[in-house]
Amino acid sequence: MPPIDFYFDFASPYGYFMSEKIDALAAERGRRVTWRPILLFAALRALGLPPPFEHPVKLEYITADFARSARFLGLGYRLPPAFPALTQQAARAFYLLNRQAPADAVPFAQAALRAYFRDGQDIASNDMVAQMVCEQTEALGDAAAVRDALQSADAKTLLQDAITAAVENKVFGSPFVVIDGEPFFGVDRLPQIAQKLAATA
Amino acid sequence: MPPIDFYFDFASPYGYFMSEKIDALAAERGRRVTWRPILLFAALRALGLPPPFEHPVKLEYITADFARSARFLGLGYRLPPAFPALTQQAARAFYLLNRQAPADAVPFAQAALRAYFRDGQDIASNDMVAQMVCEQTEALGDAAAVRDALQSADAKTLLQDAITAAVENKVFGSPFVVIDGEPFFGVDRLPQIAQKLAATA
Repeated sequence: MPPIDFYFDFASPYGYFMSEKIDALAAERGRRVTWRPILLFAALRALGLPPPFEHPVKLEYITADFARSARFLGLGYRLPPAFPALTQQAARAFYLLNRQAPADAVPFAQAALRAYFRDGQDIASNDMVAQMVCEQTEALGDAAAVRDALQSADAKTLLQDAITAAVENKVFGSPFVVIDGEPFFGVDRLPQIAQKLAATA
Repeated sequence: MPPIDFYFDFASPYGYFMSEKIDALAAERGRRVTWRPILLFAALRALGLPPPFEHPVKLEYITADFARSARFLGLGYRLPPAFPALTQQAARAFYLLNRQAPADAVPFAQAALRAYFRDGQDIASNDMVAQMVCEQTEALGDAAAVRDALQSADAKTLLQDAITAAVENKVFGSPFVVIDGEPFFGVDRLPQIAQKLAATA
């Protein structure tokens, strides 16, 4: 069975919630998940769509809904002090690891998402992301080497290619899960994702 | 216990899905529901928000999601030939009935939503809505009288007042359910609505 695609932005609470659920849900049906972090704002801009939640009325609703959805799903969560964060560094780190030490990429992403959404750490800075990478693996060298790698043209290209692929697949939100070509937008589609996986198992 | 507020637009598939679920869900916990049809585009305009789903990429997704969500919820549904419809007439009819024959208002709304989303009938026209009202009740007189009433300044004011109240309550989507001051946007919030109702019962 082909893997499931899981697109998300490191700054997306709903993306974090999905990240805590999708691997186990897929595994129940013998499926694997390909994690595909993107920069949602860049994808939306490329699609000609406005950024999400910028209106105060929606922002107020969604902020309350983040916390309610976390409780509903049984997940630790608090609104990070720095929200939303810039997530280029985290996403670049993911794709560097994904190429050079694939087994470390998802654990790094999980650690970064939990650090941000559960523990209130800032994940925007080059320093912080380099430190998180080094806590996970030595595959990219020491902190100084990771910091350099995160600023490399190579890392930027890897991420840009991932965003371009997401745009081609019409990914307009986070989380965005694609199963055998069928898209599911939002963590509230988990029950329908489970139904789809059951039907195709 | 105070009633639950259920805001919807007669042209909203997700609003139709919620309309088939919310009364029974509330009744399980001894709660009643106040149906509050609005014109979503007017409410969004008043809030300074853009109309929903107008981008082709989102429209394609959402069109497939309508059908998938209907199947998931076990509801009869097909995309109406005339979609989206103008829903002033249906909403005005609801508020006229709600004042003059309150027991007939929700049954009329249910019939109109099913006619549109299940049976593919057009609900935009004055003639069609007058006919639906007359099939439900004689409270507003014969079809000619209903057609006149739907065009009256009185009917327009009733609907405008309902939209104004929705905007004051920051209703930015359909369906939009408010329970004891807490807002729930979208039919996919049904499980959280059930949890809220259980907690307050």
